[in-house]
Amino acid sequence: MNQYSINSINKVKRISKKADYSKKTIHQIIDEALFCHIGIIHNDKPIVIPTIHARMDDQLIFHGANASRLIRTSDQSNICVTITLLDGLVMARSHFHHSMNYRSVVLFGKAEIISDELERMDAFKAITEHVAPGRWNDARKPNEVELKQTAVLKMPIDNASAKISAKFPTDEDDDYALDYWAGIIPVNQSYGEPENDPDLKDGIELPEYLKNYTRD
Amino acid sequence: MNQYSINSINKVKRISKKADYSKKTIHQIIDEALFCHIGIIHNDKPIVIPTIHARMDDQLIFHGANASRLIRTSDQSNICVTITLLDGLVMARSHFHHSMNYRSVVLFGKAEIISDELERMDAFKAITEHVAPGRWNDARKPNEVELKQTAVLKMPIDNASAKISAKFPTDEDDDYALDYWAGIIPVNQSYGEPENDPDLKDGIELPEYLKNYTRD
Repeated sequence: MNQYSINSINKVKRISKKADYSKKTIHQIIDEALFCHIGIIHNDKPIVIPTIHARMDDQLIFHGANASRLIRTSDQSNICVTITLLDGLVMARSHFHHSMNYRSVVLFGKAEIISDELERMDAFKAITEHVAPGRWNDARKPNEVELKQTAVLKMPIDNASAKISAKFPTDEDDDYALDYWAGIIPVNQSYGEPENDPDLKDGIELPEYLKNYTRD
Repeated sequence: MNQYSINSINKVKRISKKADYSKKTIHQIIDEALFCHIGIIHNDKPIVIPTIHARMDDQLIFHGANASRLIRTSDQSNICVTITLLDGLVMARSHFHHSMNYRSVVLFGKAEIISDELERMDAFKAITEHVAPGRWNDARKPNEVELKQTAVLKMPIDNASAKISAKFPTDEDDDYALDYWAGIIPVNQSYGEPENDPDLKDGIELPEYLKNYTRD
């Protein structure tokens, strides 16, 4: 199956022509984004927490301190994970048709703490390599004390949808004659020159895999 | 008061030394971000929806189609609004101390549809000017039909907190001797050359206020 099945949970409700349920599209957006926003319910109120994530095949992975509200509240609970990449500001001739170009993914499902130690280490590796491929073997691995403090959760990527807006403005017919500028201001995430830690040990160079950092 | 009062709702739970409750800091983060993530509860499950916002003094403003789930579910309900600006990838000598530099704001409160027509138009203007100061008077204003389709909500900014991480990695003492690179990869949002709508009317130039677009 190249596409997630559409059901009452993941069906895009608004402007459904922008919806995309293909695995390829959904995985690409998840993989490009550096972090997600996770929605949980705590004391009957919604809470939205930004956190780093990774993907292992059809599982979304995130982690946190055992003691954190995100981890304690997410385990065995329904959560919503939303990932948003902003691509442009769309300026129309009317205010009504102003919008943004974006690629977003929304995932619904139950999260669960990973208890298997090997699976957990694979998940740690996935999170590290999600941010910087090559880094896992180029830093000290977690020790027992560190592992005890941290929980890793997984959530199946199945009730998934993407929504993509990538277009010039669509104005009302009469408005094209108006004397207002219309178009797109592109928005990108960019990465600066890596900055050495002031306490960097002498003789250590920036590793190749961190040069010209990009998410493409 | 230069600071929001700290209570059980908005008190930052994790790594509280990163917390900031000053109005100035919180307003700056809200004003710089182009969009937020709103958490709502629908059918007993959390949903997180990205949307554009603006600030009018101590009110957060957002809008949407009257028919949308976000609008229908938010009115008179407790919501959570989270805004996250990513500033850098922090590479430590141990995986455990890898992190990100960021500025985030979390707001808790009840949203409410703005019914007063003048206040509503002010809110529309605030949203437009939040994205592009100068645009409100340089596009066609909403007409009656458009106004009928759109709801604008406000939420008091009071149960508010910011969390800021802006630092080089802090490693375990023993790890500074390891031969791993450590430092920061800066992350920025950048803006490309504005692209004219292919149907742009002849003779219309890019307005001054959209040249060298920035959020600083």
